[in-house]
Amino acid sequence: MKNIALIGFMGTGKSTAGKLLSEMLDLQFVDSDEEIERKEGCSVKDIFNCHGESYFRDLESTVIKELSQCTGCVIATGGGVVLSPGNMENLRKNCIIISLKATPEVILKRVGSTGARPLLDVENPQHEIDRILNSRQGLYEGDLIIDTSCMSPDDVAVRIRSFIQSEKHSSSFSMEFGDASCEVVSGSGVVEDIYKFICSFHPEGKVLIISDPSIRELWGGKLQRALDSHYQLDWCIIPNGEEHKNIDSLSQIYDKAALMRLSKDSLIIGFGGGVIGDMSGLASATFMRGIPYVQVPTTLLAQVDSSIGGKTAINHREGKNLIGSFYQPQMTMADIFFLFTLPPREYISGLAEVIKYGIIYDNGFFDYLEKSINDILQLNPKVLTEIVRRSCSIKASIVQQDEKDNGLRLLLNYGHTIGHAIEAATEYKKFLHGEAISLGMEGAAFIAAAMGLISENDRSRQGRLLAAAGLPIRFPSMDKDKVLDLMENDKKVKNGHLRFVLPEALGKAGIYDEVPESLLMDALEQLKND
Amino acid sequence: MKNIALIGFMGTGKSTAGKLLSEMLDLQFVDSDEEIERKEGCSVKDIFNCHGESYFRDLESTVIKELSQCTGCVIATGGGVVLSPGNMENLRKNCIIISLKATPEVILKRVGSTGARPLLDVENPQHEIDRILNSRQGLYEGDLIIDTSCMSPDDVAVRIRSFIQSEKHSSSFSMEFGDASCEVVSGSGVVEDIYKFICSFHPEGKVLIISDPSIRELWGGKLQRALDSHYQLDWCIIPNGEEHKNIDSLSQIYDKAALMRLSKDSLIIGFGGGVIGDMSGLASATFMRGIPYVQVPTTLLAQVDSSIGGKTAINHREGKNLIGSFYQPQMTMADIFFLFTLPPREYISGLAEVIKYGIIYDNGFFDYLEKSINDILQLNPKVLTEIVRRSCSIKASIVQQDEKDNGLRLLLNYGHTIGHAIEAATEYKKFLHGEAISLGMEGAAFIAAAMGLISENDRSRQGRLLAAAGLPIRFPSMDKDKVLDLMENDKKVKNGHLRFVLPEALGKAGIYDEVPESLLMDALEQLKND
Repeated sequence: MKNIALIGFMGTGKSTAGKLLSEMLDLQFVDSDEEIERKEGCSVKDIFNCHGESYFRDLESTVIKELSQCTGCVIATGGGVVLSPGNMENLRKNCIIISLKATPEVILKRVGSTGARPLLDVENPQHEIDRILNSRQGLYEGDLIIDTSCMSPDDVAVRIRSFIQSEKHSSSFSMEFGDASCEVVSGSGVVEDIYKFICSFHPEGKVLIISDPSIRELWGGKLQRALDSHYQLDWCIIPNGEEHKNIDSLSQIYDKAALMRLSKDSLIIGFGGGVIGDMSGLASATFMRGIPYVQVPTTLLAQVDSSIGGKTAINHREGKNLIGSFYQPQMTMADIFFLFTLPPREYISGLAEVIKYGIIYDNGFFDYLEKSINDILQLNPKVLTEIVRRSCSIKASIVQQDEKDNGLRLLLNYGHTIGHAIEAATEYKKFLHGEAISLGMEGAAFIAAAMGLISENDRSRQGRLLAAAGLPIRFPSMDKDKVLDLMENDKKVKNGHLRFVLPEALGKAGIYDEVPESLLMDALEQLKND
Repeated sequence: MKNIALIGFMGTGKSTAGKLLSEMLDLQFVDSDEEIERKEGCSVKDIFNCHGESYFRDLESTVIKELSQCTGCVIATGGGVVLSPGNMENLRKNCIIISLKATPEVILKRVGSTGARPLLDVENPQHEIDRILNSRQGLYEGDLIIDTSCMSPDDVAVRIRSFIQSEKHSSSFSMEFGDASCEVVSGSGVVEDIYKFICSFHPEGKVLIISDPSIRELWGGKLQRALDSHYQLDWCIIPNGEEHKNIDSLSQIYDKAALMRLSKDSLIIGFGGGVIGDMSGLASATFMRGIPYVQVPTTLLAQVDSSIGGKTAINHREGKNLIGSFYQPQMTMADIFFLFTLPPREYISGLAEVIKYGIIYDNGFFDYLEKSINDILQLNPKVLTEIVRRSCSIKASIVQQDEKDNGLRLLLNYGHTIGHAIEAATEYKKFLHGEAISLGMEGAAFIAAAMGLISENDRSRQGRLLAAAGLPIRFPSMDKDKVLDLMENDKKVKNGHLRFVLPEALGKAGIYDEVPESLLMDALEQLKND
C-alpha cells in the first residue's frame, strides 16, 4: 500500500491530523521532523541554531528519501520539505500527497505561542509567515489540497480518509428543456476526466474558466491539467464572496471573453460555488446572445441546487438575484471530491437543501437520508455520490415540469418564507443559508402539524434528521417581532400573499397562501423553545 | 376646415415652411408678425424700440385672437406667442398646432445675419438664444413637433402636409415563437391609443419608459398623456447616440427599475430607435429574469428591422452587439407619424432595409416599392403604413423560421458583407448604416450578375430603385484595398468564410461561401465607377 504524505506550511495541522488519520486507518504514523530529532539526538531548533538551515535541509532530504521507501505509513513532513524538488520527487514515487493549508492568521494563532519554530524567531512573526508563504507559492501541490483553517483535526482526518478510500466512479442523466438539453454528471474524481465528458460537444477551440481565488488554488491545477492539452485555455478570477456577484464582475467577465475573442464555437466553464455559477451562467447566456456553457459546481449547495435549473443571476444593491436569465448549461459536473475541501459548516449547511428534497418530493429519499446520516457526516464517497445524484434528479424533475418558475418550482422554496426572514433579521451574519432554511423548515412543519397536514411523528422525524445532520432547529434568542415584521413587509411587496410551502406528508408538499397569523406566531414561539 | 398654426422659436422655419405648405395645400398664408406690422405701420423691431416688449405682446394677443377665428389658413406665429397661455388657448380652439424646433447653433446660423431680431440685439446672441430657449422649455407643445435642424423648408412642409392629411388607421398581426408571441401593430397615430392595445395584457400597475432626450422631447408628451391615467409611470432617459449603448446605460436602467421596484407584473416600454430598442430589450430580458416588454420604435430602421425578431444587445468596446439575448416583446408598435419627424437622411437610410426585403424575399413587394417610390418620398401615410407592415411581416416570417439565428436569418445580411467593410473603412462617419448597405447590395448584385445568378436587367432595377430612393449606389473615392483588407480580416475572425448573401432573382436570395476574389475585386471597382 502507498504511503500518505502530508505536506504543508507549519501550523496547517499535518502532525495532529496525521496521527488521527493513522489511528483511523490503523497505519503507522511518522513525523519527519521527529525522525530527524531522533537521529541527531537534539531538537530541530537546536539543529538550526548550531548548524544552520542548510545542514538541516540535508538531513531532511535523507530522512524523506528513507521514509518514501516505507509502505503503509502516514508521513507528516516538515514545512520546508517542498523547497527541494528532489524531496517531492521521492515522495511522489510511493505516496499519495495531501497538501494542507491555512490562512496566515490561523497559522500564527496555531504556532504563535509555542516558541519552538526557528523560522518564526523574529520580531514580527505575522510578516514573516506572509513572506515565507509568498516565497513558497505554488510549491504545496498535492493530490488533494485542504484548507484546514475552519476544520478540526478530526474533520481533516475524516476527509483525507474518504479521499484515500474513494474509487473513481460516475453516473449521469439528461434533462431536456424545449430545444436545449443538459447532461448532469456526478461522481468522484470526474473532473480529472472532464475532457472525456465534454469533448463530444466541444472537441477543440477556446475555453474560458470563470472561478474564484480559493477554488483556483485548491482545484485549479487539476482542471487546468485536465484541459490544457486540448484547448486554448484562459481564466477569469472573480474575488470570493457574494458582494462580488454584481455587474462589475459580470463586466470583467465580458472584458475577458471579448479579449479572448470567444465565439459561439467557444466554451465557458463556471468553476466554483453558487456565486460563480450564477454569474458565469449569466455571462454565457448574454455573451454573443448565448455561448456554450458547462458548470462545475464545487459546493454541496451549488451541486444539488443552484447548478440545476438554468437560473442565472447577479445581485443589485436593491435586491438579490435581481438581474438574470434562464439559460441551461450543456453539462453540469458535480465532483464529490470538492466536498472534501469545503469548510464543514458550509457542507452541513448544504445538507439542508438535500433533506428538503426528501421532504417535499421523495419519501424514499428521506428514508435513505435517515439511514445514511452517519455516512453522510463521515463523507462516505459512495453515499455522497448517491445523495448528490438523487438531489439533482429531484430538482431536475421539478424544474423540467416548470422551467420558467411559475408553479411547481415554488415547492423548492420550502422553509424559505421563515428562513429568509430569519436571515434578514440577523443581517445575513448569524446563519448560513442552509442553517436558516433548516429553521424555516422546522417552523413550516410546526404550522403544517397544527393545520393537521402532517402527523406529529413526521414532524419530529424531520426535526431529528435536521438535528442529526448538525443543522439548527431552534433559535432561542430570535427576535420574533423583527422576523414577523420582515415577513409582513415581504407580504406587501408580493401583493398581500404570505406564501408558505407546507409538507402534507414526508415526500409531498403544497402551496398555502392563507396561513392564520396565530399559527405563524405559535410556530415562531416553538422555534424559540430551547 | 381648421387652421394650421406653426409655433416655434425664431429661426425654426415657421414662415418659410408655412408659405410652402400653404401653396401645397392651396390655403391662405398669414404671418402674425407681418399682420402686426401691417396694422401698426412699422416693423416689429421699431415697435419693440418705441413701445417695449409688453406693448408688442398685447398687439400680438389681439392679432392671434383674430387669426384663430379664421378658417383654412396656415398661420405662422411669432416666437413669443407661447408666452401667453391665452394665445395658446385661442390657437388650440380652431387650429392644428405644429411646433417647429431647431438646435441653438442652427437657429443662430439662420437668424444671425439678419439683424432684424430685436431679442438678439445683444453682445453674445448664442448665449441669449440658449437663455431664452431654456426659459421657454415645455412651452412649444404641439400636435406635431418637428426638429427642422436637418431639414429643408420643403422637407418640413411635406411632412406637415402628410400629418394633416393622415387619417388614423392601424393594422396588426401576430408572431409566434415557442411559448412566446409578439403582436406587431403599425399605423398612423396608434401611439395615442396605446393603452387600448396593451391593456389586455397590462391593465394596470407600473410602467417604465426607456427613451432618449430627442424622442422624449418630440413625442414624450403624447405617450405620457396616453398612459399616465392608467399606470404608475416613470422614465429612464439615456443620452442619444450609439456610444451610449453600453453596460453603463444598461446599469442605469437596472437602477431605475430596481428603485421603482418593478416586478413581473410591471411593463417596460422601449421608446426610441434601434439603440433604445436593443438596450431596453436586454434590460427587460434580464431584469428579474424577464419582465413584460413593449417596443415603440421611432425610426424607420427600428420599425422595419431591429424591433422585429427579439434580438437585444449592448455594445462592448471590442465589438458591436457583443452582449445580448433573444427576447420577444409582447408587442411592437410602429406609429408611422414618428417617421415625419426623422431627419430626412435617416429616413432614406431606413429605406435601404425596406428595399432589401423586396430583393431577398418578396418580388411583389419590390414591384410595389418601384411603383410607390414617389409616395414614399412624399411620406404618404397610407403607403408608409403599408411598407412598414409588409417589411415587418417579411422579417417576422424569416425570423419565425429561424429564431435563434442559425440559417435563413442569414439572408437578412444581404448587402452587409461589403456594407460593413465600407462602414468600417470610413470609420462609421461617411455613411449611415442604410447608405452603406445600399452600396453593399449594389456590390453583391454585381457579383450575382457576374456569377449568372441574376439578369443584368434585375441588377439594374435594384440600382435604379435604390438611387430613386436617394440612396448612394456608387462610392468613387472608396479606398478599395482598405475595404478588401477589412473583409479579409473579417474572414479570419469567422474561420475562413467570407459569406455573401446573393440575389438569385428579385425576391429570392441564397448564401454563398465561395465567391472568387476576382469577382469581388470587380464588384468593388464597379462601385467606384462614377
